[in-house]
Amino acid sequence: MKVLVVGSTGYVGMMLLRILSSHPEIDAIVPVSRSAAGKRLREIDPALGPAIEPLLAGTDGRLVSLEGASPESADVIFSALPHGAAAALVGPFVGTTPVIDLSADFRITSLERYEAVYATKHPYPELLDRAVYGLTEWHREEIATAAIVACPGCYPTATLLPLLPFTDIVRTPAIVNALSGISGAGRKEKQDLLFNERSENANAYNPGRAHRHVPEIEQELASLEILFTPHLVPLKQGMIVTTVAELSRDISQDEAEQRIRDAYEGSSFVGLSPRGIPQSRDVRNTNRCDIGVRVHGTHIELFSAIDNLYKGAAGQGVQNMNVRLGLPEHLGLRAHGEF
Amino acid sequence: MKVLVVGSTGYVGMMLLRILSSHPEIDAIVPVSRSAAGKRLREIDPALGPAIEPLLAGTDGRLVSLEGASPESADVIFSALPHGAAAALVGPFVGTTPVIDLSADFRITSLERYEAVYATKHPYPELLDRAVYGLTEWHREEIATAAIVACPGCYPTATLLPLLPFTDIVRTPAIVNALSGISGAGRKEKQDLLFNERSENANAYNPGRAHRHVPEIEQELASLEILFTPHLVPLKQGMIVTTVAELSRDISQDEAEQRIRDAYEGSSFVGLSPRGIPQSRDVRNTNRCDIGVRVHGTHIELFSAIDNLYKGAAGQGVQNMNVRLGLPEHLGLRAHGEF
Amino acid sequence: MKVLVVGSTGYVGMMLLRILSSHPEIDAIVPVSRSAAGKRLREIDPALGPAIEPLLAGTDGRLVSLEGASPESADVIFSALPHGAAAALVGPFVGTTPVIDLSADFRITSLERYEAVYATKHPYPELLDRAVYGLTEWHREEIATAAIVACPGCYPTATLLPLLPFTDIVRTPAIVNALSGISGAGRKEKQDLLFNERSENANAYNPGRAHRHVPEIEQELASLEILFTPHLVPLKQGMIVTTVAELSRDISQDEAEQRIRDAYEGSSFVGLSPRGIPQSRDVRNTNRCDIGVRVHGTHIELFSAIDNLYKGAAGQGVQNMNVRLGLPEHLGLRAHGEF
Amino acid sequence: MKVLVVGSTGYVGMMLLRILSSHPEIDAIVPVSRSAAGKRLREIDPALGPAIEPLLAGTDGRLVSLEGASPESADVIFSALPHGAAAALVGPFVGTTPVIDLSADFRITSLERYEAVYATKHPYPELLDRAVYGLTEWHREEIATAAIVACPGCYPTATLLPLLPFTDIVRTPAIVNALSGISGAGRKEKQDLLFNERSENANAYNPGRAHRHVPEIEQELASLEILFTPHLVPLKQGMIVTTVAELSRDISQDEAEQRIRDAYEGSSFVGLSPRGIPQSRDVRNTNRCDIGVRVHGTHIELFSAIDNLYKGAAGQGVQNMNVRLGLPEHLGLRAHGEF
Repeated sequence: MKVLVVGSTGYVGMMLLRILSSHPEIDAIVPVSRSAAGKRLREIDPALGPAIEPLLAGTDGRLVSLEGASPESADVIFSALPHGAAAALVGPFVGTTPVIDLSADFRITSLERYEAVYATKHPYPELLDRAVYGLTEWHREEIATAAIVACPGCYPTATLLPLLPFTDIVRTPAIVNALSGISGAGRKEKQDLLFNERSENANAYNPGRAHRHVPEIEQELASLEILFTPHLVPLKQGMIVTTVAELSRDISQDEAEQRIRDAYEGSSFVGLSPRGIPQSRDVRNTNRCDIGVRVHGTHIELFSAIDNLYKGAAGQGVQNMNVRLGLPEHLGLRAHGEF
Repeated sequence: MKVLVVGSTGYVGMMLLRILSSHPEIDAIVPVSRSAAGKRLREIDPALGPAIEPLLAGTDGRLVSLEGASPESADVIFSALPHGAAAALVGPFVGTTPVIDLSADFRITSLERYEAVYATKHPYPELLDRAVYGLTEWHREEIATAAIVACPGCYPTATLLPLLPFTDIVRTPAIVNALSGISGAGRKEKQDLLFNERSENANAYNPGRAHRHVPEIEQELASLEILFTPHLVPLKQGMIVTTVAELSRDISQDEAEQRIRDAYEGSSFVGLSPRGIPQSRDVRNTNRCDIGVRVHGTHIELFSAIDNLYKGAAGQGVQNMNVRLGLPEHLGLRAHGEF
Repeated sequence: MKVLVVGSTGYVGMMLLRILSSHPEIDAIVPVSRSAAGKRLREIDPALGPAIEPLLAGTDGRLVSLEGASPESADVIFSALPHGAAAALVGPFVGTTPVIDLSADFRITSLERYEAVYATKHPYPELLDRAVYGLTEWHREEIATAAIVACPGCYPTATLLPLLPFTDIVRTPAIVNALSGISGAGRKEKQDLLFNERSENANAYNPGRAHRHVPEIEQELASLEILFTPHLVPLKQGMIVTTVAELSRDISQDEAEQRIRDAYEGSSFVGLSPRGIPQSRDVRNTNRCDIGVRVHGTHIELFSAIDNLYKGAAGQGVQNMNVRLGLPEHLGLRAHGEF
Repeated sequence: MKVLVVGSTGYVGMMLLRILSSHPEIDAIVPVSRSAAGKRLREIDPALGPAIEPLLAGTDGRLVSLEGASPESADVIFSALPHGAAAALVGPFVGTTPVIDLSADFRITSLERYEAVYATKHPYPELLDRAVYGLTEWHREEIATAAIVACPGCYPTATLLPLLPFTDIVRTPAIVNALSGISGAGRKEKQDLLFNERSENANAYNPGRAHRHVPEIEQELASLEILFTPHLVPLKQGMIVTTVAELSRDISQDEAEQRIRDAYEGSSFVGLSPRGIPQSRDVRNTNRCDIGVRVHGTHIELFSAIDNLYKGAAGQGVQNMNVRLGLPEHLGLRAHGEF
C-alpha cells in the first residue's frame, strides 16, 4: 500500500511518518511538502532512522511537491496542513482516493459556523457532507466508507471520549478544563512558544467559549454546552482533561465506571485507567485515551489523558485509515506509554 | 532583629532563609533543624552564598537544635515543620514571642475538623483561638496583634484571593481547578516525586472534596462550597488556579474587574494581571498574586497565579511578620517575576 | 518464545517489557520481581496497555517470584538487577538458558578489578569467563554463542562506539565528557533525584577516574586511557558524549568520517548523523547511536548520542538476544527518534 | 541616579531591568527600545510588578526611542543590543557618559579580528582602545575609570574565571566543554529554540575553534589556546563549564584549591563551591561563579557554574557599573541561588 502525506514537516506530519513507517501494511510513503520539496527527508527530520529509506524509494528519499507526487496512484491521502490549505489541496481527490484529513476543514458540518470560526471562505463547501467526523470509537461504521475522514482536534478527542457516555444525565454547561503540551500549538516560530517562555510556566488562555474547538465539541454533544478553559503546561506531548458537570439524576460510582466500560468494550485504546485517575505519561506516544470518573454526590467528574500528537492527531488518523481500509483497527499503533 | 527558623531544610524553610537574609531589618537568623543540627548550613544548602554568614554569626554558621537556639531571645519564630510537629514545637512560645506558623496546625479553627482532616491529636488545642488566619490582604488588623499567625496553604491562597471578592454573587459549588508545581509536595524522598516520574507528566489527584485544603478554603468562604481538583504539572515553583462559578445575579465584565481593584486597592502584591490572564512565570520568586476575571454570561471565571513557595508559603509568612512587627508590609519581598 | 525478565520494576526492566511486548518473536513474558511478586503488572506499571495481557497469560498478568517463574522453561533470561544481586540470581541458569545480563556483574573480566570497583564479593567468579561483552557491533560472533551476554553500561556504549574506530591513532588520555539524562541514575528514592532538585539544574560529578564505568571502558580500549567526566542534565532519557583526543598522526576530515562508515557498514543502528553533530532527541526511544566527528588539526573530536535506557540498556539487550538466538539483529527495535 | 537601558526587550535587557529596579542607588530607569517605543513596559514584560512604576516616572511607564531618552542626562548607559547595533548606538556618548556595553562590539581589541569573527564593519573603530574588558574580578582598576566597559560573554566569563589562575602551569590546548541554558541563544523566533525542539534534547554545536567566543577567551589567556565545545541543554538559565588541561608541572590538590582562594580573596561572588563541584542551580539568578578544581596526576580539571543571564551578562554589567561609579561592588546583586 502506498500513502501520501501532505504536510510532512509539521509536528503532526512528522508523527504520521513515524507511525506509517512502522505499519506492517505500508510499502511506500510519499512525503509531500510545499516549502521543502526536493530536500532529503532525513536531512529535514534527522531523527528518522535509515530504516525509512526503502519506504521512500519512489521519491529517492526526498520530499516532493504535490504535482510530483502522483496522488492518483496512492491508496490513501493524509493531509496534515493548516485549515484552509488542507481543503484546497485535497479537494480534487475526494471521491477518488480516501482522504484522512487532520485539519479543521471538514470537522464542522455547518458552512456558516465553519466560516465564522475560522474567518475564511471554505474552498470546497460542496464536500462538507462527504466528510465523516473521525472520532473512531463513535463513528466506525460511517468511517469505513467515508470519502473524507475529518479527524478530531486533540482537545475534542480528549473531551468527548469521557463525556459522551454521560450526555443523557448531565446538566448544561459542563465545566471543562484542559491541559495541553506545547506541541499542540504547532511548529510555529513564535516568541511565546520558545523554550525560555514555556519552561517553568503554565497559564490558561482563550477561556469560556473563545477557543475554536468549542463548536466542534458541542456539535458532537448535541444539546449539552460547555465552558472550556484550555491551559498550556510545559510538556512536549501530552494532554489532560478534567470535566465537572452537575448530574440531572443520581448515579453510583459503580454505575459511572460501568458506563465507560460499556461504551468502550472491545476497544483497543480507550478505557478506564488502572490508576483510577490517568497521568499523561501513561499514554505518551500511544493511541490510547485513559479515562477516570468520580461521582461527587450531585456532580460527576471525568478525567482523560491522551498524547495530543498521537491519539489527538496522527495516531487517530492512522486508526481511521485502518478502519477505512478494512484493516484491524489497532494495526501499527503503539499501546505502551512511558514511565 | 533576630528570627528563629524552625525547619530549615525543607523547601519552605530554604525559601524563608533566602528571603530573610535579604530583609533589611533582620540582623540575625537562627536556623533550627532536628535532623541536621550541628552541620554547617551552607553545606546543607550550598546555593546560599557567603553573604549569609554574618547573619548566622550567633550559631557559627551552623544549624542548631531548638534547645540550643535560645528561642526566648528571638523577636519572631517561624515554623516550617510538618503538621503536628509544628504545634508541638512552637506551643511553648505562644504568647511570649510572635509565632509565624507555616504548617496546617493553626489554620482550622474547629478542633474536631482539624483532627478529622489530619488524623492526629492536636497537641495544643487551647491555642487554636490564639491564632489568626494569615491571608494577609484579608486579615491585616488581626494579624498585627496575633499571638500566632497561621499562614494559609498555597492552594487556599491562590483560590481565595480571586474568589473572596465574589462570594456574595456566586452559587455553590464553585468549580476550582488548580495546577501546582512539584515543590508543593515537599522535599520527600518519594518515587512519584522523582524527576523521571514528573518530567513530561501531568495529572489530577485527590479531586472533589478529598484534598486536605478544602476545609481550610471553605472556612474562609462561609456558606460557599467548592469542588476542588488539584493537578501536578512539571514546574518546580508555580501555581495556577482556574475557578468557574454560576452567578446568582448579572455582573458586567467591567464591574467584575472593578471588584478586584477595589478589594486590593493599595496592595503591593495582589491585583489584576497586565495580561488579562496571568501566567505562572509572571510571579515566580515573588510575593505577588496576579488575577484575571472573565464574565461568561451566566458564569464567572477567575484566574490566579502565585509562586507556591513564595506567596503560597515563605513570602506570605514574611509579609505577615512585617505586619505583625509594624514594618512596611512589602519590606524585603520580591516584586518582579521571571520572563 | 518465552522470556524471563528478572527485575521488572526498575527503569531498565520497564523498558525491556515495552520492547519485548512488541517483539514479533516473543509469545510469553514472565515478569519477575522480588519486591512486587503477586501484584498485577499493569497496576505497578499503568502505562503498559491492555495489549500486554495475552503475553502475560502464564502468570495471570502478575509479577512472580523467581521460584514461581519456572526459569528452566524460558528461552532466554534477562537480568535487570543491581550489581551483586544479578550474578547471584542468574548464576544457577548459566549454561542451561542464555542469560542477557544488564548489570555490571559480568562486564569486567578481572575478578580483582570487579571486586575493587564494586566493593563486593563476586558470587560466581567461575562464570566470569563464560561471559561476552555485549557491545553488539563489536562482538557479534562471540555473542552468538555466549552463555552470558554482559551488556555494557550506557556511558561505555556511548563512549566506545565512536572511539573504537580511532584507538590506533589517538594519544592517551582521551578527554571524555558525557551528559546523561536522570533515568541513568535508576529509580531510587533519593533526594538528589527529585524533580525539584534536577529541574533547571546541571552538574558534573565523579570526574577523572572516579566513575565505575572507567575500568569497563578502558578494558575495551586496550592501552588507551581516558579522563571521564559525567554530567547530569535535565533530560528523562538521553545521553550525549563528546570526546577530544590528540592525534598521533594526521588524518583528514573525510578519512575520519570514512572510518565511522567502514566500522558500522551494514549496521542497522550505528552510523554518522545526518546533522553532522547528533542531538539526543534524534535517538530517543530508539536503539540507535548517531555519531559525529570533527578533525581540528592536531586533535580529533567525537560526538555520539544514544538513549541511555534503550541502546544504553534494554534495547541493546534485546539486540543481543536477537544475535544470540539467530534472529535478525534489528527485530522489534525502534529506529525513529523524536523531533 | 538615572540609568538608560538600550535594548530592554531581550532577555539580557529584561534581566537588567529587574536588577536595576531593586538597586538601592537607582532612582530612575529609562527603558529604550527601537521596536517597542511608546508601549507600556509592563505590558511588554508583565512579570515586572507595579513596584517598578515609580522608577519609570520620567517616561510615564513607557519604552522610549533613543531620541526621546535624553541620554545626555543619564548617569550611565547600558547597551543590551546585538553586535553592530550596540556600537552604532552608544558610540556618540562615549567619553560623556559611562557606557556599560553587553554586546560583543568592544570586547575584541583587534579590529581585524573583530571584523573577521563578526563579519561586519565596526562603526566606531577609534573607540576600541577606550574600552576595558569587563571581567570584573580581573580588571577592577581599569574598569573604575573606563569610558566603555565591554562586558564579557557568558561562555568567556564561565571559562576564564576558573582558568585564569592556572595559565602559567597548563599546556596548550585546554579542552573546554560548556553547557548552556537556552536563554543564551537570545529571544529569537527560531524553530530550533522552540520548547518542543529543546525539551528532552541536548547537543554539542560549533565545536573546536568555530564559536565566536573563542577569540575573546584566548585574548585573555595570552598564549594558551583552547578547544571549545559548547552544548545546549534544557535549562532556561544556567551554565556549567568543565575544562581539562595537561599540567606543565606537578601541583597538589591543596595547592590548586589555594590558587582559587588567593585569586578571589575578598570577592563577593567568585570562589570555591561548598559542594566541591558546583551545580547550576546553586547560582541561578545570582551574580556568583562557583568553582571546583580536581587534580588528576598529570592533568587538572576545572569546574564552574554561573547564571548565563546574570553573572554572564546583566549582573556582571551592574557589578561593573558599581565599580565604575565607586559604589560597593556587590550592591543590588543577588547572592543566593535556588535549591
